Amino acid sequence: MTESAQPPAEATAHVAPGFPVVGVVGGGQLARMMQQPAIALGIGLRVLATSMQDSAAQAVRDVRIGSHEDLDALRAFAAGCDVVTFDHEHVPTAYLEVLEAEGVAVRPGSKALVHAQDKIVMREALTAAGVPCPLWAEVSSSAEVATFAETAGWPVVLKTSRGGYDGRGVWVLAGLEAAHDLMASTTLADGARWLAEERVDFVQELSAQVARSPHGQAVAYPVVRTVQTDGICTEVVAPAPGLTDDEVVAAQHAALTVAGALDVVGMLAVEMFETRDGRVLVNELAMRPHNSGHWSIDGAVTSQFENHLRAVLDLPLGDPSATAPHAVMVNVLGGDKGDMYHAYLHCMARDPGLKVHMYGKDVRPGRKLGHVTVVGDDLHDLLSRAHHAADYLTGTIDE
Amino acid sequence: MTESAQPPAEATAHVAPGFPVVGVVGGGQLARMMQQPAIALGIGLRVLATSMQDSAAQAVRDVRIGSHEDLDALRAFAAGCDVVTFDHEHVPTAYLEVLEAEGVAVRPGSKALVHAQDKIVMREALTAAGVPCPLWAEVSSSAEVATFAETAGWPVVLKTSRGGYDGRGVWVLAGLEAAHDLMASTTLADGARWLAEERVDFVQELSAQVARSPHGQAVAYPVVRTVQTDGICTEVVAPAPGLTDDEVVAAQHAALTVAGALDVVGMLAVEMFETRDGRVLVNELAMRPHNSGHWSIDGAVTSQFENHLRAVLDLPLGDPSATAPHAVMVNVLGGDKGDMYHAYLHCMARDPGLKVHMYGKDVRPGRKLGHVTVVGDDLHDLLSRAHHAADYLTGTIDE
Repeated sequence: MTESAQPPAEATAHVAPGFPVVGVVGGGQLARMMQQPAIALGIGLRVLATSMQDSAAQAVRDVRIGSHEDLDALRAFAAGCDVVTFDHEHVPTAYLEVLEAEGVAVRPGSKALVHAQDKIVMREALTAAGVPCPLWAEVSSSAEVATFAETAGWPVVLKTSRGGYDGRGVWVLAGLEAAHDLMASTTLADGARWLAEERVDFVQELSAQVARSPHGQAVAYPVVRTVQTDGICTEVVAPAPGLTDDEVVAAQHAALTVAGALDVVGMLAVEMFETRDGRVLVNELAMRPHNSGHWSIDGAVTSQFENHLRAVLDLPLGDPSATAPHAVMVNVLGGDKGDMYHAYLHCMARDPGLKVHMYGKDVRPGRKLGHVTVVGDDLHDLLSRAHHAADYLTGTIDE
Repeated sequence: MTESAQPPAEATAHVAPGFPVVGVVGGGQLARMMQQPAIALGIGLRVLATSMQDSAAQAVRDVRIGSHEDLDALRAFAAGCDVVTFDHEHVPTAYLEVLEAEGVAVRPGSKALVHAQDKIVMREALTAAGVPCPLWAEVSSSAEVATFAETAGWPVVLKTSRGGYDGRGVWVLAGLEAAHDLMASTTLADGARWLAEERVDFVQELSAQVARSPHGQAVAYPVVRTVQTDGICTEVVAPAPGLTDDEVVAAQHAALTVAGALDVVGMLAVEMFETRDGRVLVNELAMRPHNSGHWSIDGAVTSQFENHLRAVLDLPLGDPSATAPHAVMVNVLGGDKGDMYHAYLHCMARDPGLKVHMYGKDVRPGRKLGHVTVVGDDLHDLLSRAHHAADYLTGTIDE
């Protein structure tokens, strides 16, 4: 560990007698947004960040600087935390196992988290649990991709089993030649393998989120529609429009089944495809608060961030119900406007019901810098308001 | 200023380009609860606290240690803040004037804030503005109290014009002898005078809150009913039950008039009495977020804490509307239970819709340690749930 991982004594979390400290590995916006319910619940939040400028490091007092790929930094970070949880899935599984063996309460645990880290391990477990998935196969050559395509058809979706996120590590291949070229020119990361999947002809993409506690309590959030642009989630509508009751139950049931089968603790997001014939197939898993649940801060009785804290602390879970008929969340991605603060004047004056959430990040094109949420009765109006605000903040429009 | 008022460089607020830093003088729960919307808005919050264990000092990164009665500490604190605002009214007026003369954006300004600091200055200004008040007079002897009682009747409410809060500095006097004994045995603080007021025979106590910006925009929150116990606000119901439309308009109009007449910037709480003949009379003012508005965190589109930040930054104000028919807030006061965290298990399991807000304070009998809020359709049910949770947290009941 680096010397700077030792903070001054006054920087350590202070809480009232009996209240716990939760350590969050990673200093991104998910850790940042955990601080809001941590303040309400009187819980101390400690963040392992790579710099004091990290999104979450700006928002908490107890910041430790270190790498999630440094076992000693992880050990020093965990000392004094009642529970350790995550802002991302990138801590090496072997290090989590060491921390657990040394008595650290890691939640979700390494045995669960590996399913969010390795997509082949995830596919194997979901298939064993009877959870509907697209056709899939582990492949090691373009010839095996072609064999898979004999059943699944072209195009084939090829993924690295580890290390991808926000659209990275995912390719859509038209045929054998494309598979050959990609696999010949790509070096897999340590421990990663190739996963071939059927390209699903979906009606819409869904996300079903559940929170689950160590003692097994679980609650299911409304199933939402997500829109991905270039692999990044850009819009969420809660609840997902047009789903039949059977589809909602199937999606929630699948998410609860995954949470139980994999012994997930904390928030679980199950990203799904709704197919043209009314089935829901699992696409990806995330075992932490997820972009598809940001609407819950302003639109649910208990936000995903509060329920994540309650779950990892084995507290009874809060009501995940929506507080309004519809909620719309739109991500604010970096554009050409370097200073977004002055755009507040226009956005807030135009829409007093707009809820703005910025992450304290410097602007880079395409980077997730924040999100906006609106809730209400008229979905068409909400979509228009949320997109206008996000577009104005980024500079895509100027009126 | 003390040496410890100079924080390490890494403790200073970091914000994205163009985003402001708001300095809050005072490290209590009001500053703590400003941090939640500050995180959402991407605003840096700096807190002037008396110790790193202060309620707000636990929740923000940029903590400065110093006294609000130390001009040099205030100057050092203000340097680098875009705006300075307050958790309490106790900064000496003269120091605020010095800061303003030196170019600090103090909001609310000293000319407004003095009305929340000195009750005689407040009564003079409100009377001049035509805002209904109880009968009042400045008095300097028990004989003058008796003269006042010839018109107002006994009992008389006697207050120190400065320095009182949460029931301190307020006495109800049955007659001349009690006035004599009290005034003979009480030394007034520097600058404080005696204020005699009519004891109002009220139906209920109300609070009307407004937010107001430097450029004059103002929004009015629903008028709420407050219940005081031993001078401390213990229960708030939003909106106040049983008010006629005329009474609501009168209360909101009075609050907006006060805000405009006194040039208030930020949140203003106007505590009022509803009389048996349907009038509303102003009791006290607070120019900051106020206990009577804590319900707005969970029950309004824009909380009082967010609108306070938006107002002092001269941003357009957020919608103050309630999101449900009723909200009930009950304070959690210190009792005989030293560790409140373990009470979470029972409270949260019993009521998944309960919103808990703890302030990170050590338990002392009667101290405000937190509050709980519930929102919904059935006021009777909400009152029962909120009081049960608060009583269980404090240890007054054990099931």
